[in-house]
Amino acid sequence: MPNETDNNNSLPAIILVQPQLGENIGAAARVMLNFGFQDLRLCAPRDGWPNQHAIAMASGAGRLLDHAQVMTDLRSALVGIDFAMAATARERDLVRPILTPQDAVRDLFQRSNKGQRTAIVFGPERSGLTNADVASTNALIAIPVNPQFKSLNLAQSVAVICYEWMRTTTVGGKETVGISQPLAEIADKAKFVDLLVEELEQTGYFYPPEKAEGMRFNLRGLFMRMDLTPPELRTLHGVRRALARHSHDAHDSV
Amino acid sequence: MPNETDNNNSLPAIILVQPQLGENIGAAARVMLNFGFQDLRLCAPRDGWPNQHAIAMASGAGRLLDHAQVMTDLRSALVGIDFAMAATARERDLVRPILTPQDAVRDLFQRSNKGQRTAIVFGPERSGLTNADVASTNALIAIPVNPQFKSLNLAQSVAVICYEWMRTTTVGGKETVGISQPLAEIADKAKFVDLLVEELEQTGYFYPPEKAEGMRFNLRGLFMRMDLTPPELRTLHGVRRALARHSHDAHDSV
Repeated sequence: MPNETDNNNSLPAIILVQPQLGENIGAAARVMLNFGFQDLRLCAPRDGWPNQHAIAMASGAGRLLDHAQVMTDLRSALVGIDFAMAATARERDLVRPILTPQDAVRDLFQRSNKGQRTAIVFGPERSGLTNADVASTNALIAIPVNPQFKSLNLAQSVAVICYEWMRTTTVGGKETVGISQPLAEIADKAKFVDLLVEELEQTGYFYPPEKAEGMRFNLRGLFMRMDLTPPELRTLHGVRRALARHSHDAHDSV
Repeated sequence: MPNETDNNNSLPAIILVQPQLGENIGAAARVMLNFGFQDLRLCAPRDGWPNQHAIAMASGAGRLLDHAQVMTDLRSALVGIDFAMAATARERDLVRPILTPQDAVRDLFQRSNKGQRTAIVFGPERSGLTNADVASTNALIAIPVNPQFKSLNLAQSVAVICYEWMRTTTVGGKETVGISQPLAEIADKAKFVDLLVEELEQTGYFYPPEKAEGMRFNLRGLFMRMDLTPPELRTLHGVRRALARHSHDAHDSV
């Protein structure tokens, strides 16, 4: 069983995007601590923060709420995170691996052991995560449910994933071989895509206008999904700059 | 995945002994149905029955509450049950096997398949099951928790056990899926990299000369490793062309 001092570094952060009910935030915090999780991040909780309903439901796990980082959006919450998975009930029209909780936890556990900082992202109660938010993550977790009644409560979803972590890590995870080098941070990948999109805007690439948003979205998703090491991300920046600078120089000389 | 009509016979009954909060009863009913459970039995719920808080929390699983059997004590609730396990957080001074949720579910599943009628018993929120109640069961289930914060919410305990059932019984049925769209052929990815490298040669990107080969190698490896769908590969071609054409046009006009 992992001890508390190890946990902050090695267990995934739990990120709740736009949670609506304080009760669910509190219940999520409580069950996180039940299974040894401590890093709670909240993106734009609907009813503001702090929240008395959350405090009441956390009963004994209040310090997770005290230390929760509150951000305006998922992108800020992912700063410092190398690899993120999104728990989602809906089918997505996105190119992403979909894992069972069991396989997801095995993967996250191995990444943690290699020093990667990981996160699991949960969407708002009613609507779930937007595709844009899902696109910032590397993979999806689908909890197996009764097809006739799929809608899991938010805190119950957190419970299932955190329990699965405890179950897997106390039994001993199975080894598969992933990328062993440290990975570039999600925020740094996002910055790359921003710059690429900016360059492409200047070339008139996003055409016709009615397709531009979808094109940008697909392009972003494609790079955000990648496991990239920092040197590889630098390579991509180099490629981007080489093509763009060349083009700008040429322009300048015109 | 078991279908609804099978469930009533083959899945364990969930028995809540003296549950205090209607909210927990409702949340338990909801998560039961999420994982295909339908047989809910209540022993002496503190606030009487029916309970408006339970109904509110069940959201969509109301019929489990409608059909819940309400009894005065555990003994009555166990009528018709062949084998029962008690979920308990506390150590007991009783001679009973203590199983992990995983082993408990395997055992219950085998018994169900042999036609035994099984049940899982949960105690009241604050105090847990009495020893007398535990003594009416055949074995204990201990959910692995953080030793510094053991107290699981009642509905969360139900969630963990019901999820564990779904997980165990659907193994093989639901597997992790990788990216489900067809992928671009390796040869097509290689063609993309060839063209990209060619473009980059013209920009002087591969510099200094003694590093050029390593740079080309890393760049190739980065794209070849990616799982890319054909539309995504076309996107990358578009990006490459947009940047390069822009640059060439500029050159031509010099």
